[in-house]
Amino acid sequence: MPSVAILSTGYEVLRGYTLNTNASWLARRATECGARVTSVVTVGDGIEDLARELRRLATHADCVLVTGGLGPTEDDRTRDALALVAGVHLVKDPRARAVVDDYFRRSARKPGPTQWRQALVPEGMEPLRNPEGTAPGIAGRVGSALVFLLPGPPREMRSVFEAEVLPRWRALGPFDETAARVVWTAGAPESDVARPIEAYMRADEPTVGTHPDDGEVAVRILARGPGAAARADAVLAATCQALGDHVVSIEEEARIQHAVVALLAQRGLVVTTAESVTGGLVARMLVEVPGASRVFRGGLVVYSDRWKAARLGVPEALLARDGAVSAAVAGAMADGALRSGPADVAVAITGVAGPGPDDRGVPEGLVFVAVALTGHPTRVASHRFAVPRIPLQRRAAVAALDAVRRALLALG
Amino acid sequence: MPSVAILSTGYEVLRGYTLNTNASWLARRATECGARVTSVVTVGDGIEDLARELRRLATHADCVLVTGGLGPTEDDRTRDALALVAGVHLVKDPRARAVVDDYFRRSARKPGPTQWRQALVPEGMEPLRNPEGTAPGIAGRVGSALVFLLPGPPREMRSVFEAEVLPRWRALGPFDETAARVVWTAGAPESDVARPIEAYMRADEPTVGTHPDDGEVAVRILARGPGAAARADAVLAATCQALGDHVVSIEEEARIQHAVVALLAQRGLVVTTAESVTGGLVARMLVEVPGASRVFRGGLVVYSDRWKAARLGVPEALLARDGAVSAAVAGAMADGALRSGPADVAVAITGVAGPGPDDRGVPEGLVFVAVALTGHPTRVASHRFAVPRIPLQRRAAVAALDAVRRALLALG
Repeated sequence: MPSVAILSTGYEVLRGYTLNTNASWLARRATECGARVTSVVTVGDGIEDLARELRRLATHADCVLVTGGLGPTEDDRTRDALALVAGVHLVKDPRARAVVDDYFRRSARKPGPTQWRQALVPEGMEPLRNPEGTAPGIAGRVGSALVFLLPGPPREMRSVFEAEVLPRWRALGPFDETAARVVWTAGAPESDVARPIEAYMRADEPTVGTHPDDGEVAVRILARGPGAAARADAVLAATCQALGDHVVSIEEEARIQHAVVALLAQRGLVVTTAESVTGGLVARMLVEVPGASRVFRGGLVVYSDRWKAARLGVPEALLARDGAVSAAVAGAMADGALRSGPADVAVAITGVAGPGPDDRGVPEGLVFVAVALTGHPTRVASHRFAVPRIPLQRRAAVAALDAVRRALLALG
Repeated sequence: MPSVAILSTGYEVLRGYTLNTNASWLARRATECGARVTSVVTVGDGIEDLARELRRLATHADCVLVTGGLGPTEDDRTRDALALVAGVHLVKDPRARAVVDDYFRRSARKPGPTQWRQALVPEGMEPLRNPEGTAPGIAGRVGSALVFLLPGPPREMRSVFEAEVLPRWRALGPFDETAARVVWTAGAPESDVARPIEAYMRADEPTVGTHPDDGEVAVRILARGPGAAARADAVLAATCQALGDHVVSIEEEARIQHAVVALLAQRGLVVTTAESVTGGLVARMLVEVPGASRVFRGGLVVYSDRWKAARLGVPEALLARDGAVSAAVAGAMADGALRSGPADVAVAITGVAGPGPDDRGVPEGLVFVAVALTGHPTRVASHRFAVPRIPLQRRAAVAALDAVRRALLALG
């Protein structure tokens, strides 16, 4: 299995001002393509640091993927570092020049005064087409290691990797057959997701891990070697079986909101929202899904008692008696939203995001979710989230969408 | 200036399944505390890799900060690696045991069968109190380098760093005086933020950089050495002067939504929202701010034409004539929201998030934002965002909040 090291460059990343999403993306893609990622390293823009790490990583890995530092400015030094380490000169490369010129022609922008730097390539190395931007990537070698320089902007990095790096890199082979699978779950904490699949998680092959992510938990399965796909699929099926209705999806990009929109669309139903504690986040998650308008026409953010009463018809007496954060008010919100929709399903959410308890002493983290469905009794569930305000709102919104998902599944 | 290396551990991070937010946070804190971060490295859970990197980094930096691998399971190997590299045994430490016991007492949870592992500390090293969790940190030395092991969960990592690491680490001194400042801006692309402060950005001291972040742009100023605070403040003042009303805040945690809530609270005004393309995101951003209920009582998500007409009184004829994504409809939405609030300010947003144009051929990325303010003419602005659906919705929401901010500023 070829080994891969990732080298991220730039002071913005090194000093933590820019989150290193490039490294995560590359690491996952490389892993799922059958490579073994051995280390991810970030250094600044200094040419000595770049050269030292490039040299070191090239002796440890079959392939080094470098991101950043391919821009036109004096701070962009990765091509210089690669030339230095390989012991060659930078030369003006007509193919690289064509990549730069092509970008400026397409975008109708004017090249900057130092743009010519982007046409420099270490002698004997190969410029890589950049479908999304001006900086050509570079493919070369340091000793026996393949080295790829990729631009820093994430969209450019991804497109150069997919279009130019992957084919060349695959020629490195033989790669192990690799199969990656994911099971997204909602409604159970990580420990409850892990318990029924413990035996798989203890096994060495395929590797199985649980990864909490913003209120959902992913189970990731990675099989390698001959028959990988069949082994991964067997564990996938067993995981789905073991986790039952906690399973939201088995597609990387399909999260709880996608599952809810798909279930609604399948059944031809329309949902509406009535949100207090999440202040619009449930609705916002629904409209993250392209085509959400088929199943979502609108919703209400009812942050005050007055809005709950005036817009949803929640009885003032109930608000006074039980308080806005109560099962009864959650239920009345959902019923009111369903009545006034028009909608087939209404989800309501009320709670205390904190910091601290609300003015009736209801503790931070207590959240009620209600789902009203035409022709069915309204259901209310309570949750207690022990995280700060913003992740709490996110988890509460996931709980609300999960309540809708489960109500729809119960329809059969 | 002491040098710091950061070592992140664990296959989840190495393979890109977990974004390495810990490293970013530590790198920024270390930089702002006056250290020079030299490299950030991620390796897996294998003890050989851990030991090799720990040894290498300890010869290159004055301090190594390690995150992850302090849990109770067999995969948690950083304490073993530290003992190996330091050439000492792991011993049961009564102080570490007290940290673990204390956690289980406070949380009323039951320790797992391998929890005793968390009371192990390399002989002669010091356990660190963990205010937020069960895993004690560890402080020790490898050669001349100070090494700190920190737990992986971000809240625990941060609290152990602040409470236990920072005081010990400062004793490492002398640290350069360091002063970090930030200016958050909205309403101008990065190039327009950079242009008026170009001279500062070219200077070596303080360093000044622009960092786009989710629709806002941060200007970060970092001064080092004697007189750092005064130099940073001078550049801060000049930056604020140069960027004028693009400046949203000069506090790290105060983003556009905090600025809007503060401006409303100062003026005793209440805002309401009417969202189409952002589907509740503007409201959600407002309620991210603790105490948002002083200035926000509720809002509407009006995703369909019917909701726009029925809930906001947008004339059907106008919707038919201009289409939902138009300046006139945006204005009518804001006016309708202001009328029905009750509120002093209403912000409305409509647009095409894509992928692709809407069914009237309005192109993806076109967004209209309207602000209605009691006693003032309603203002509408158009934007064109060239990013995919989800970042587009985020940028559109920032544009909507920025329109409110500018309208409030114009009140004087």
